[in-house]
Amino acid sequence: MKEQQKLLKKIYSLDKELVLYDHITSLLHWDQETYMPSAGVDERSEQIGLLSRVMHEKMTDPGIGSILSDLGASDDAPNGDEQLKDADRALVREYYREYSRQSKLPSSWVQEFSETTSKAQSVWSKAKQQRDFSEFEPYLKHIVKLNRDKAQLLGYEQHPYDPLLDEFEPGMTTSEVERVFQVMKEDLVRIVEKIGDADEIDDSFLYREYQESAQESFGKMVLSDMGFDFSRGRLDVSAHPFTTGIGRDDTRITTRYSEPSVADALFSTIHEGGHALYELGAAAGGLGKTSLGTGVSLAVHESQSRMWENMIGRSSEFWSWYYPLFQRQFPEQTEGVEFYQFLRAVNKVQPSCIRVNADEVTYGLHIILRFELEKLLITGDLDVSDLPEAWNRSMKDLVGTVPEHDGEGVLQDVHWSAGMIGYFPTYALGNLFAAQFFAAMKHDLPDIEQQISQGEFKAVLGWLHEHIHQHGAVYQAPDLLQRVTGSSLEPRYFTEYLQGKYKELTGL
Amino acid sequence: MKEQQKLLKKIYSLDKELVLYDHITSLLHWDQETYMPSAGVDERSEQIGLLSRVMHEKMTDPGIGSILSDLGASDDAPNGDEQLKDADRALVREYYREYSRQSKLPSSWVQEFSETTSKAQSVWSKAKQQRDFSEFEPYLKHIVKLNRDKAQLLGYEQHPYDPLLDEFEPGMTTSEVERVFQVMKEDLVRIVEKIGDADEIDDSFLYREYQESAQESFGKMVLSDMGFDFSRGRLDVSAHPFTTGIGRDDTRITTRYSEPSVADALFSTIHEGGHALYELGAAAGGLGKTSLGTGVSLAVHESQSRMWENMIGRSSEFWSWYYPLFQRQFPEQTEGVEFYQFLRAVNKVQPSCIRVNADEVTYGLHIILRFELEKLLITGDLDVSDLPEAWNRSMKDLVGTVPEHDGEGVLQDVHWSAGMIGYFPTYALGNLFAAQFFAAMKHDLPDIEQQISQGEFKAVLGWLHEHIHQHGAVYQAPDLLQRVTGSSLEPRYFTEYLQGKYKELTGL
Repeated sequence: MKEQQKLLKKIYSLDKELVLYDHITSLLHWDQETYMPSAGVDERSEQIGLLSRVMHEKMTDPGIGSILSDLGASDDAPNGDEQLKDADRALVREYYREYSRQSKLPSSWVQEFSETTSKAQSVWSKAKQQRDFSEFEPYLKHIVKLNRDKAQLLGYEQHPYDPLLDEFEPGMTTSEVERVFQVMKEDLVRIVEKIGDADEIDDSFLYREYQESAQESFGKMVLSDMGFDFSRGRLDVSAHPFTTGIGRDDTRITTRYSEPSVADALFSTIHEGGHALYELGAAAGGLGKTSLGTGVSLAVHESQSRMWENMIGRSSEFWSWYYPLFQRQFPEQTEGVEFYQFLRAVNKVQPSCIRVNADEVTYGLHIILRFELEKLLITGDLDVSDLPEAWNRSMKDLVGTVPEHDGEGVLQDVHWSAGMIGYFPTYALGNLFAAQFFAAMKHDLPDIEQQISQGEFKAVLGWLHEHIHQHGAVYQAPDLLQRVTGSSLEPRYFTEYLQGKYKELTGL
Repeated sequence: MKEQQKLLKKIYSLDKELVLYDHITSLLHWDQETYMPSAGVDERSEQIGLLSRVMHEKMTDPGIGSILSDLGASDDAPNGDEQLKDADRALVREYYREYSRQSKLPSSWVQEFSETTSKAQSVWSKAKQQRDFSEFEPYLKHIVKLNRDKAQLLGYEQHPYDPLLDEFEPGMTTSEVERVFQVMKEDLVRIVEKIGDADEIDDSFLYREYQESAQESFGKMVLSDMGFDFSRGRLDVSAHPFTTGIGRDDTRITTRYSEPSVADALFSTIHEGGHALYELGAAAGGLGKTSLGTGVSLAVHESQSRMWENMIGRSSEFWSWYYPLFQRQFPEQTEGVEFYQFLRAVNKVQPSCIRVNADEVTYGLHIILRFELEKLLITGDLDVSDLPEAWNRSMKDLVGTVPEHDGEGVLQDVHWSAGMIGYFPTYALGNLFAAQFFAAMKHDLPDIEQQISQGEFKAVLGWLHEHIHQHGAVYQAPDLLQRVTGSSLEPRYFTEYLQGKYKELTGL
């Protein structure tokens, strides 16, 4: 046991350094997106490259491999010795996971992947602008091949998509995603069809001119109410909203006021605020000095941001408190807009070709489309040259719209050009996790809607902290869900949530 | 020769990494002073500590020592082989200097110094607030002892103050400073006496309320006119103004709008702008990827900031262009203030106990006082317990004022608590360098005052770039001065500059 403690101490000591390097790198990125003068970009890439190299070298030091194996970690027992504490096992798991992943991918593959995606991103950006898939096609072919190779190198038992998915959502399997997406697809299509019959909603008032500083102060008020502590974080402006951890007591979010609708900045502020509360909660306790003091997975992270943005932030309870304040802040813009018109406007369902513009209902369909196409690309059942056609056909079947060109079709997302295949499902899983967590919270806190309608979120945040945030990355997502809700992933919670909301809004 | 190129390549490769680490550390500091949320401070210290440790380890790697010695560097030939190019020799010089310094200071001394000054700074801060020297006295005693030990460890030929001074102003000696300060002291005392007879100047309009955003836009206009490129830098707000290099194309300055006089923010903006133009110029060419692409010394750096702030920024030519613009920006605040009243107000000479509030004339006397006391402390001719009395006596003799308490006397500066003895002279040397450079520039560009009076600084910046900035840290300060002006340091240029200015302003 003493020997074990010594080995663990070594891992914790490495981990402490890596956490610092990771946070420093986050500051370099944050600064680049917010305040860095434009000409600084060249050296900034070198700075980030240097720290990435240092972190990679430390992670792949063969010494780590032998410590992990001495701690009992292997492909069959990735958490190491069962007698260790949960947090220690989780740390072993995370390091073993990363270490074995890195040792399975030869440096020739890593270099080819890095060079290909580096070029592919600028080619994609140009191709998207020019609406010309053919430019990007050879790069995407190469990226798909590299991902197929990666699946073979990492190994799998059931589906070659498994190891790709597992990289972004540890513990999740292709068959599990297929199971829940199948149910979700049927439910969502039915809901969209129903809502399609509802009246057109006039949301033009959202597109009036709203002063940026007034939007900012309204957003900051909501963040404060949510429990975001401005002594441990900031809100700034960037081209694309994001959340980043720069220290265990320093998590920063960004928003943008450049979109035509006032709703965009506000809901993206709440969305990122949800991510930030998770990070700050995970880092607040003893885990904060380790790499476990952070969100456990992309889907669980997205469950937090979506719950705050949609389930809380677009609810009638939320706006029964905030709409009078919003009206006071923006009297001219909201003149003549009644409460229900406002509520329906911020919950408007309107099928669109573009994922990032999608409403809560159609969003999942955009993800299912990508998941299904990615699987076909990885199994080899779909050739990249046939992708645009397959995309457009699926879009028509699932969402009911057809892109006018590839720029708003197959080329719309950055992910594939960055080499990320297996990432998209996490977005929709986030909604499903959110609904299942939210149902459990409502069960535990019967008066929570009453509290939200008073602008009171202490109980919400307290529940999230107790059940989710404080555990950081100790329990993998499926395990966490089981612990918190007593069951595995059930898509019906999300469907029920949507049905409830749109029944209230449209009287369906 | 081939072998030499190989060795040089190794030094350049280490240097490239160290430059990146140094710039990353600068970003960590900059962020801490500008945007970091307050609770981030604990981990930020750890982040900075980690990178400092990494840089220190790389610098003191014994491998470096043997490369430097293979390149011919020794205490007798610190620049290495004479056949190397100037820049290569300078790099060898800088690394040999740092390497031999670090190998002469045993780690026990380094640790004691670091622990003592770390505690001393918080003790000093409290003592200053409570105006009680006795609290700080034992710490200062310890710091003086550590500095006396340091002088012995580093070694010297003439004066134990030499190696302390040399750390902050490489190439400068105690006897050289004594020589120029002796002349400067007599000249300044005479000028102060003369000006003392002049009328009281009404500068109360500087203390009216000036909107911060209007001050900022005025300051940014002046910076742009000076040639500060906002695609390679920024202006932000911090408690104490500073300049920092975050990348070869990213130098940032700060100012503060919290001081009661509008002049404070504006002149500190111009001052830091002068530092920044030096940094940006040094980093712009081939040197920018090396540690030589930066200012060569504190005194030369201060010569740039003071020249822009005082010799240009407080001149009648400068304000003949900018005062109408200032009046347009601040019509109410400047109502009834004629040009000469404004000019005399921003050049007001008023002996004060506080160095940082001192005008151009009395500033040098504050420095002479510190230089003389520091020497006595280091030779052992003055005991720390007698320091407050010696301070007050000198202050009366030199500046003509007596502090009301130690908080505005011997405790006013942070430097000693941080262990820095030998730093103060660089401030006054900066003024002397500035005046000597400025005289050379005026000689080369006879119409420069005419240009300044048109708000036109291209020729100024061009001259500074050609003669000073582009050389970065290649030539040490005394060498640079000789190359640019053809002579060693001559205090008379500064005296003549002051006499000329105050003759114009007061008709003396």
